[in-house]
Amino acid sequence: MRRIILGLIFITFTSVCGFSRSRTLNGGHGSSIVETDTLQSKVLGEPRDYTIYLPAGYETDTTCSYPVLYLLHGFSDTNQSWFHNAPLATIADRLIASGEIQPMIIVSPNAGGRPGVDWNGYFDMPGWDYEKYFFTEFIPYIESAYRVKEGKGNRAISGMSMGGGGTASYAQRHPDMFSSAYIIAGWLDNEKIDAVDPSDKVALVRQAVAEKSCLEFLRQASSKDLENLRTLRWYVDVGDDDFLLYPDLEFYKLMRDKEVPCQLRVRDGSHNWEYWTTALYSLLPFASRNFN
Amino acid sequence: MRRIILGLIFITFTSVCGFSRSRTLNGGHGSSIVETDTLQSKVLGEPRDYTIYLPAGYETDTTCSYPVLYLLHGFSDTNQSWFHNAPLATIADRLIASGEIQPMIIVSPNAGGRPGVDWNGYFDMPGWDYEKYFFTEFIPYIESAYRVKEGKGNRAISGMSMGGGGTASYAQRHPDMFSSAYIIAGWLDNEKIDAVDPSDKVALVRQAVAEKSCLEFLRQASSKDLENLRTLRWYVDVGDDDFLLYPDLEFYKLMRDKEVPCQLRVRDGSHNWEYWTTALYSLLPFASRNFN
Amino acid sequence: MRRIILGLIFITFTSVCGFSRSRTLNGGHGSSIVETDTLQSKVLGEPRDYTIYLPAGYETDTTCSYPVLYLLHGFSDTNQSWFHNAPLATIADRLIASGEIQPMIIVSPNAGGRPGVDWNGYFDMPGWDYEKYFFTEFIPYIESAYRVKEGKGNRAISGMSMGGGGTASYAQRHPDMFSSAYIIAGWLDNEKIDAVDPSDKVALVRQAVAEKSCLEFLRQASSKDLENLRTLRWYVDVGDDDFLLYPDLEFYKLMRDKEVPCQLRVRDGSHNWEYWTTALYSLLPFASRNFN
Amino acid sequence: MRRIILGLIFITFTSVCGFSRSRTLNGGHGSSIVETDTLQSKVLGEPRDYTIYLPAGYETDTTCSYPVLYLLHGFSDTNQSWFHNAPLATIADRLIASGEIQPMIIVSPNAGGRPGVDWNGYFDMPGWDYEKYFFTEFIPYIESAYRVKEGKGNRAISGMSMGGGGTASYAQRHPDMFSSAYIIAGWLDNEKIDAVDPSDKVALVRQAVAEKSCLEFLRQASSKDLENLRTLRWYVDVGDDDFLLYPDLEFYKLMRDKEVPCQLRVRDGSHNWEYWTTALYSLLPFASRNFN
Repeated sequence: MRRIILGLIFITFTSVCGFSRSRTLNGGHGSSIVETDTLQSKVLGEPRDYTIYLPAGYETDTTCSYPVLYLLHGFSDTNQSWFHNAPLATIADRLIASGEIQPMIIVSPNAGGRPGVDWNGYFDMPGWDYEKYFFTEFIPYIESAYRVKEGKGNRAISGMSMGGGGTASYAQRHPDMFSSAYIIAGWLDNEKIDAVDPSDKVALVRQAVAEKSCLEFLRQASSKDLENLRTLRWYVDVGDDDFLLYPDLEFYKLMRDKEVPCQLRVRDGSHNWEYWTTALYSLLPFASRNFN
Repeated sequence: MRRIILGLIFITFTSVCGFSRSRTLNGGHGSSIVETDTLQSKVLGEPRDYTIYLPAGYETDTTCSYPVLYLLHGFSDTNQSWFHNAPLATIADRLIASGEIQPMIIVSPNAGGRPGVDWNGYFDMPGWDYEKYFFTEFIPYIESAYRVKEGKGNRAISGMSMGGGGTASYAQRHPDMFSSAYIIAGWLDNEKIDAVDPSDKVALVRQAVAEKSCLEFLRQASSKDLENLRTLRWYVDVGDDDFLLYPDLEFYKLMRDKEVPCQLRVRDGSHNWEYWTTALYSLLPFASRNFN
Repeated sequence: MRRIILGLIFITFTSVCGFSRSRTLNGGHGSSIVETDTLQSKVLGEPRDYTIYLPAGYETDTTCSYPVLYLLHGFSDTNQSWFHNAPLATIADRLIASGEIQPMIIVSPNAGGRPGVDWNGYFDMPGWDYEKYFFTEFIPYIESAYRVKEGKGNRAISGMSMGGGGTASYAQRHPDMFSSAYIIAGWLDNEKIDAVDPSDKVALVRQAVAEKSCLEFLRQASSKDLENLRTLRWYVDVGDDDFLLYPDLEFYKLMRDKEVPCQLRVRDGSHNWEYWTTALYSLLPFASRNFN
Repeated sequence: MRRIILGLIFITFTSVCGFSRSRTLNGGHGSSIVETDTLQSKVLGEPRDYTIYLPAGYETDTTCSYPVLYLLHGFSDTNQSWFHNAPLATIADRLIASGEIQPMIIVSPNAGGRPGVDWNGYFDMPGWDYEKYFFTEFIPYIESAYRVKEGKGNRAISGMSMGGGGTASYAQRHPDMFSSAYIIAGWLDNEKIDAVDPSDKVALVRQAVAEKSCLEFLRQASSKDLENLRTLRWYVDVGDDDFLLYPDLEFYKLMRDKEVPCQLRVRDGSHNWEYWTTALYSLLPFASRNFN
């Protein structure tokens, strides 16, 4: 188990310069923890990594349990991406310390890696039943291995790009599982592919996205489906220069036309980590206030 | 010369997924460039590194010249820190592409490294005449080696922590050199040290900061000094949990009492890269609109 | 009882132009209501007005009860000021509709009017026991006349200028009454006045502010006092050009030195309604997330 | 000539309370001025009002001239609306004082009033050649009666709702006249009307909007037209709950598809003055940095 104690990164600058830091925000409660660990999956027949953020106090206040944000990475990324490419733990630490969000666990499972080499994708496809893994193994494991509050009201889901598609589709088809869904630059749809070579892992994920089209789901949604969607809070956040702008706008229009309350924000930016990093400033409060 | 073509980082994702990106923002102009290079300093008797951002179009529109933002790092950091710890180039690229800032060069010189081992500091001190180097070698070199617009109106200065102190003190004592000074969590003052061991590089920088106290400068400023300070635009940006909050507030109060126009912002945060990264969103527009 | 149904202001524009509005956010729940009413005070021996915001749904979902934000106006202002000079109801409507804040009641009591003619001030002073009125008559009345959730966890207090001083002092001396206190450009202190003409209503309020100095309270606070202060969430929000900046910074420094968690924000601006209006965007979420 | 000296509104609070205001931002330069005046139009055969903001210093620094932002109101509004329903002058004063925008003149002409009674609309229609008036009388008058910098580089245009449509259409068909166009919740298109009663002033404006459809203009734009559009900076700002969201998104998509650089922002909100007021915080810097 590899552990990175964030507190240690905290500058030793203080002593060498003779500055005195007047108060440490998380002082009495211990520091937050980011750790990467592995779960042996029977469904996938292999070990899968995940990276998890445990808020300050997790180790010391051992009677507390926490809601969980499931945060999905994009195509060609891994469980480490949200933690290495964005200062996720620093942002969460600060928002918790200032009371802007409640203490929460944030976990990112691995559903990706090298295109064409590693499996990529959040849906069941020939040879890679990731969705089955996610709901029957991964969530139950997290809820047993960590001190987690259970139930729909204590789970949020979000992700960017391929993970934004996973977010929307998981929330559409498992609406009883999450209190909110925050889609960042989501890959929500794809053109159908006629003949897919079963050894082509990139074609397989494209095919899976086409089959699980989040736009098509809405177009064909029954009134019962729509009623279920209304039990979650929805949010779409996409850049004006993103190549995924149009399907994301279409998703919002379908939600609005079908009277499923949903937020839309279009900010300046394109498909990159600056946009996804700044999305954390609205995602984390959104997830937090919709818990319970 | 080590070159990192930012454009290359840009996801090849596009082709593998069959997405079509409807337009590239910087397409026709080439991409921005971040490169690290070395200047042989006679003053310091050794080579010194710097890292520089050249905006999109620098290489293709070879008739253009640009204003320069000198961006100073903190204690124990180096010329790479602003580029490795913050998505500086991505932010600058986007703000330029959307027209929020004018195209500019951003350069960070090396004035630091391992505490106690490498020299740290922006001021002249026994054995390390960095300020002399900065003004007589570094700025002239940048203005000759790159296509740079010259003069006070085309130079801005900023930095965080030890670099915030360098920013304020350079601007106080060389007001003819810069159009604006943006101080982020600045180390502006230090207690005097009685006897400094000349081999103690940490004690030397603390001593230098004490001698160049930016607060003392203001307390003793003549009306001519104040008049000079009013030829720059000033900005102080510091977190409510920063251990340097009090001296930075004191600096602002002295500026206000002495009627030198200055902006003050206190945002949520402490002495870390999340704060310094988000400062870029106000620093870059501030520098841009005060050029020329 | 004068009632202004905000919904009516909502443009009939729609029909005349042939536009169709695809959905009304508050449609099914009725509109929010702003009304001004009068309470006969025995303590003050006269009727006192107040203006109250009742969220959408208040009239239709008659089983719901709500937390209350007590919002204090400034010197020379009245109970109408927060509603007439800022789009308070529009902002609250939108933040509730988007889920950023929970539905709440917002009420502003009258403690002011024409300087020197009407009584101004939140404290007990010779001839005007306003603080007694506020705690023994006004709060109980609001909690009986409206469907209000009771208790410390369901009350927040805020205000600007003279009302910012009222906020801080009420919260300091009645910490069991409020879950949070948000001080906007607070009048927190005043020089002592030697001889006050009892017919001079302006001198009386200045004297009262001096006697109830929020800075002095902190300087002399016992450890028990400080423990009580830590049961609230605190926030200070003041402009860099405000003439009340220095006492507000001093208040924050005292809080920080005495380890009472408190937020500080200094934004661009001075002592005017633009600043106070924009403060609502952080005040309302702050009050909301600290309710319960 | 009715004049409202904004400075006078500035609280006399100071003296009565014994506070001392440490500095006045606009002190030495005089205050900004908002005035309403009337222009006798030959084209329209009647007098037309306008309201104008003159920045601090306009009256004292009589050698200065300024760029102009033409700010169009909505259907049923008048020249006073931007000044009465939003704190336009306060916001402009502050942004100028802090250096975020350059000093500019802002003027709102009257193209509206009571629906069905007064003429409403920015285009030429039977009996009301407003566009002819705007370009041949109003702009020339402003540029002669006030100290105005002339030329495309010194004019910006913006407006909300019906005025957002006026903004887009004026900028499309007079691209040589403006440096930038900022469309707020623009009424950009309308269904064609078969038979219009020439005495029905509401039907006439709807018909005019249909004929001047900004979407149709883009669909049919020649490559020369598109080249002209690229000589301006464009910005679309519309709320996610606005009933005009869809045509505004369509406008942006057409601009993007035709490679005319344009910004898009979708913020939280609907068709009301809170949205239009907060738009000023991005509109004014946008207009400012695109002048000349």
